[in-house]
Amino acid sequence: MKPFIDADFLLETEAAKELYRNHASILPIIDYHCHLSPQEIADDKRFSTITELWLGGDHYKWRAMRANGIDEKYITGDADPWDKFQKWAETVPYTLRNPLYHWTHLELKTAFGIDRVLNPSTAREIYDICNEKLAQPEFSARGLMSRYNVEAVCTTDDPVDSLEHHRRIRESGFKVKVLPAWRPDKAMGVDDPDSYNQYIDKLSSVSDTRICTYQDLIEALKKRHDFFASQGCSVADHGVSSFPWVECSETEATSIFAKVRNGDRLTTEETTKLQTSILLDLCRMNHEKGWVQQFHFGPLRNVNTRMFNKLGPDTGFDTIGDYTSAIPVARFLNALDSDNRLTKTILYNLNPSDNTWVAAMIANFQDGSMPGKIQMGSGWWFNDQLYGMEAQMNALSMQGLLSRFVGMLTDSRSFLSYPRHEYFRRVLCNILGKDLEKGLIPEEELSRVRQMVEDICYYNTKNYFNF
Amino acid sequence: MKPFIDADFLLETEAAKELYRNHASILPIIDYHCHLSPQEIADDKRFSTITELWLGGDHYKWRAMRANGIDEKYITGDADPWDKFQKWAETVPYTLRNPLYHWTHLELKTAFGIDRVLNPSTAREIYDICNEKLAQPEFSARGLMSRYNVEAVCTTDDPVDSLEHHRRIRESGFKVKVLPAWRPDKAMGVDDPDSYNQYIDKLSSVSDTRICTYQDLIEALKKRHDFFASQGCSVADHGVSSFPWVECSETEATSIFAKVRNGDRLTTEETTKLQTSILLDLCRMNHEKGWVQQFHFGPLRNVNTRMFNKLGPDTGFDTIGDYTSAIPVARFLNALDSDNRLTKTILYNLNPSDNTWVAAMIANFQDGSMPGKIQMGSGWWFNDQLYGMEAQMNALSMQGLLSRFVGMLTDSRSFLSYPRHEYFRRVLCNILGKDLEKGLIPEEELSRVRQMVEDICYYNTKNYFNF
Amino acid sequence: MKPFIDADFLLETEAAKELYRNHASILPIIDYHCHLSPQEIADDKRFSTITELWLGGDHYKWRAMRANGIDEKYITGDADPWDKFQKWAETVPYTLRNPLYHWTHLELKTAFGIDRVLNPSTAREIYDICNEKLAQPEFSARGLMSRYNVEAVCTTDDPVDSLEHHRRIRESGFKVKVLPAWRPDKAMGVDDPDSYNQYIDKLSSVSDTRICTYQDLIEALKKRHDFFASQGCSVADHGVSSFPWVECSETEATSIFAKVRNGDRLTTEETTKLQTSILLDLCRMNHEKGWVQQFHFGPLRNVNTRMFNKLGPDTGFDTIGDYTSAIPVARFLNALDSDNRLTKTILYNLNPSDNTWVAAMIANFQDGSMPGKIQMGSGWWFNDQLYGMEAQMNALSMQGLLSRFVGMLTDSRSFLSYPRHEYFRRVLCNILGKDLEKGLIPEEELSRVRQMVEDICYYNTKNYFNF
Repeated sequence: MKPFIDADFLLETEAAKELYRNHASILPIIDYHCHLSPQEIADDKRFSTITELWLGGDHYKWRAMRANGIDEKYITGDADPWDKFQKWAETVPYTLRNPLYHWTHLELKTAFGIDRVLNPSTAREIYDICNEKLAQPEFSARGLMSRYNVEAVCTTDDPVDSLEHHRRIRESGFKVKVLPAWRPDKAMGVDDPDSYNQYIDKLSSVSDTRICTYQDLIEALKKRHDFFASQGCSVADHGVSSFPWVECSETEATSIFAKVRNGDRLTTEETTKLQTSILLDLCRMNHEKGWVQQFHFGPLRNVNTRMFNKLGPDTGFDTIGDYTSAIPVARFLNALDSDNRLTKTILYNLNPSDNTWVAAMIANFQDGSMPGKIQMGSGWWFNDQLYGMEAQMNALSMQGLLSRFVGMLTDSRSFLSYPRHEYFRRVLCNILGKDLEKGLIPEEELSRVRQMVEDICYYNTKNYFNF
Repeated sequence: MKPFIDADFLLETEAAKELYRNHASILPIIDYHCHLSPQEIADDKRFSTITELWLGGDHYKWRAMRANGIDEKYITGDADPWDKFQKWAETVPYTLRNPLYHWTHLELKTAFGIDRVLNPSTAREIYDICNEKLAQPEFSARGLMSRYNVEAVCTTDDPVDSLEHHRRIRESGFKVKVLPAWRPDKAMGVDDPDSYNQYIDKLSSVSDTRICTYQDLIEALKKRHDFFASQGCSVADHGVSSFPWVECSETEATSIFAKVRNGDRLTTEETTKLQTSILLDLCRMNHEKGWVQQFHFGPLRNVNTRMFNKLGPDTGFDTIGDYTSAIPVARFLNALDSDNRLTKTILYNLNPSDNTWVAAMIANFQDGSMPGKIQMGSGWWFNDQLYGMEAQMNALSMQGLLSRFVGMLTDSRSFLSYPRHEYFRRVLCNILGKDLEKGLIPEEELSRVRQMVEDICYYNTKNYFNF
Repeated sequence: MKPFIDADFLLETEAAKELYRNHASILPIIDYHCHLSPQEIADDKRFSTITELWLGGDHYKWRAMRANGIDEKYITGDADPWDKFQKWAETVPYTLRNPLYHWTHLELKTAFGIDRVLNPSTAREIYDICNEKLAQPEFSARGLMSRYNVEAVCTTDDPVDSLEHHRRIRESGFKVKVLPAWRPDKAMGVDDPDSYNQYIDKLSSVSDTRICTYQDLIEALKKRHDFFASQGCSVADHGVSSFPWVECSETEATSIFAKVRNGDRLTTEETTKLQTSILLDLCRMNHEKGWVQQFHFGPLRNVNTRMFNKLGPDTGFDTIGDYTSAIPVARFLNALDSDNRLTKTILYNLNPSDNTWVAAMIANFQDGSMPGKIQMGSGWWFNDQLYGMEAQMNALSMQGLLSRFVGMLTDSRSFLSYPRHEYFRRVLCNILGKDLEKGLIPEEELSRVRQMVEDICYYNTKNYFNF
């Protein structure tokens, strides 16, 4: 049997091994979408225990522990760090075949140099080694980022954020670029008038703009968009469940906005209309500045009310929806393309059954102005695993140009998630290596394949985002 | 070439062979959902011919024969048993790659010791050998169940059933546990007022409850639920096409029920509301008794009217729907979870495009009270085959804990379907064996993997169902 | 590494190689659905350059070039042939893993005897060799059809077409049968009253029938249907996006038709009703004549308005929809089956997520009158590639009888697309070869498997279509 997580992990052919070793593994990481805390980077946070680092916010692990029958006390509750870690170590052997099993051991190996398998009998030893290392300065937030050869990251920031931590990081001379990214989802949350108006009040204050009309809203957002740009932001990110599309004139947007601003509930159609209008206007701003815009679509969020009331959002109770989105996505992109205001765009679908139509969709808006202007995003969230990555790359290969793909991102809240880039690179090299060995790709084009690996792992991203 | 259906059938690695031989193959079968006739078990039915046993009710074979251009006379018509068998034997070589080809030969081998391939030239010999064996007492209904090392089965029973055959079986001292399962689908059939009211009248009489109001209905069902429990039932099963979800107050349920009880047709919305309400109330009963509840969702039934009028339901004219169900499933489970009345639950999706979201969905309602409380059911019906099983196990592995899976069931009407458990176990071992040999699972955890195989084949089921 | 596109291309086992070499490769091609221009065949068109042949109308290549950042001038614009070819040659190495890479090199090899890989450094040499060959008479439209051992093709023709070119071809004694196929989609285009009425006026004139009422429409179509039959047509083809199904009485159809004929816009429901009615009536004509009818469903067309206004339809801006179609397809086929007017039918789904339900759907309408009466069509358009073909054949295998499959068609506008039949045949043999070597198919049935290969590549098609 092949050893677990050795140098050739996931690489099934000689060609794959060569591609990974000489081309993929040596390149820096550009993590163009993540959920790291800018404050923790600014503070160069130290982690008291591996429990804090691993279990403090990782809802993937929380879901696995709940499925394994672990009491919530040891998951998000007040149990002590060792007890929580022990419960996680108990769970790990039950996660065999789940991506967590690979992430866990890749992280142990690459961050802490631990080659042992985590289970109840190794838990104490591993816990102690990790904590000892975490006590060393090079295991701080910034230390970990440097250890993984990270060149740049984009965080995820609300228009009302001051971006002060990004400024502090910049001024500190930290070698990793930590850039803000614009995520104005709350500006579209018109389905809940109370919390929406609270948000709009905050936006009003931060932007120094009285927001009474739809036009005021757009003006306030525009001011913040400008501010974000001034702070180095060049990436937007838009999260939606069902992709919004009902045509909406400015007059309609104005009157619907007035209604919600007045605290009244909107009908479903009004909600979709107003969201369509706001999102289009936001995308026009993105185009004006030549930003990259990303769309993450398809989740069904907070489906467990009891746990939402207890723990709030992002605690492991989001899931995959089965919306039909091809028409709204097509109409939306077309609306922007029609007057040539569609900027560089990445589409991420959450339901893998949508892979093929998404891979086909992007081709309809490639305009020849640059290679790979419209992108299909890497396997997202529930698809960020072996089969999910392969399925995304195969769909993209069959319907478009894999060679122009901007590749991997972590989308993670953790400073330990960078091995996912390694994982992705191994999967990519394995796919190409198999094709080479099967004669599906000609050996004569080996240098092209090598360049393709380097491009997908690094150079495409660098050129696309211009960091 | 590898021999066909030898000891290593479907097992591509040494690791897989070892797992199957020493761990999977030796365990008894718990078939927790099937459609066997309790009367046939009570009577210990003898089969006059292999035609009766194979072609008497197997709509999979009927569909294949129709697709092969065989006249209905030889399928469900009055042709004599040998002629029907001959037509089936003619069809078998045309089913290569269809699961029927494997089922057929696994059944010939494991029940009758026949190693030859069935085709027109072997048909007579095989027919004669089978019929000769079927004339022996050990090939009765009970004999076959014993031959396959069956420990327990759950049948599928309507609330109005007397369960007298289950009593007879119990009293006969038959060593295989034959338990009833509660399938109250007809109590939800409100879209056809005539047949619904006939059913409600029957329910009224059996439960000795006058059913005028919605509350009466629930009371009558509750009495039968209690009766089923008294007869050893601890499993419910609910079959729906599009999963019902429209919120419905008790007042609304009461008035809609009054309308249908009066013989009036309901609107589509009323139908869904009433079905939502009834199903929620049934699930609350399941929770109260700590039963396991199963949801089979997604079929589109009786799509061929001409054949339905001729042959009735369950004759091979049901098919796979493409409903969008993620939201209704989430809302429905959430409604039960909200006041902590969600019992152990298994979700079976018929459309394999739904695999990933279903595998993700179950995690939202795992509450840490026990391992694997909410389950994704094994590849169901049209997915009960090589690729379907693999796809279901891969989706579950990526999104949840394969190790906590309760595994296989036949869902079959036939006493010869137990080799499907063997098939499933081989597929499972093959998946794990490949991962071991590729270094995706560490050899150090081999004993865990062995336990995992045994758990999925037997122990998880035993613990989950408490038979 | 295995050489690229050698004799064993795509064939991974000895069994597959034998099946391909001795059984698949030697059979003629029946291309029962394509978009070749009858006029070009009648004229025996000569191609001035490989640019004309390759880039004149191939929207697959156009999409790839746009995605590669090539200016539209070199795609559909007025750049000169060599410059366009050069831009394509630049793009080719970036299409690695896309089906275009395989098509391109298979075409170079089988049509022009070129074994070199196309890239910027080989572009000039390859361009010159191709053009030199194209100057030879055997590289005319007819020459290419003969070179690929084509026995028969069906073009795609509108009811108003005169079919004069088919007559010219027939009278010329060309050995390849070039048959018309009936594609009456425009007769269903009731969502655009202006262009619809222009079309109906043309139909009226061609059919010498005054079209005022719905009954007139059907009568005019019937006359053209008769005319097509008289010209050798026995195949119909119906393209729809979302499959239409709302029940519609003749009275309703009459009044809705009157409305659109009067130039008024229909509601969405009226549109679907009228389309349902027309399509049913067209299918009844198909049944009356014993034709084969094909349904291509699922595209979302012309999604890029800016490019549609510039280039018109079929220029690379169609995409895959995610409609829910199982119910309409079932109801529609059932309506025809109910009074026994469902003729031989092929269903092609564009969204591969629909593969399994489509494969299951066909079984509901197999009536035992002939083998494989209802077919699932080969991987269509975006699915006409390695994974798409495999997925279609696996779905069909699991749900139906692969052995009865009528196999491959090009659906192409190009005289160079016949290598796709070779590609398909290799994929088919590879699937069966693997199953043989793994012991999933018994070696005893090898002669059956060989026959199955020949049937799917040729004989099933020949028998099904009766050309």
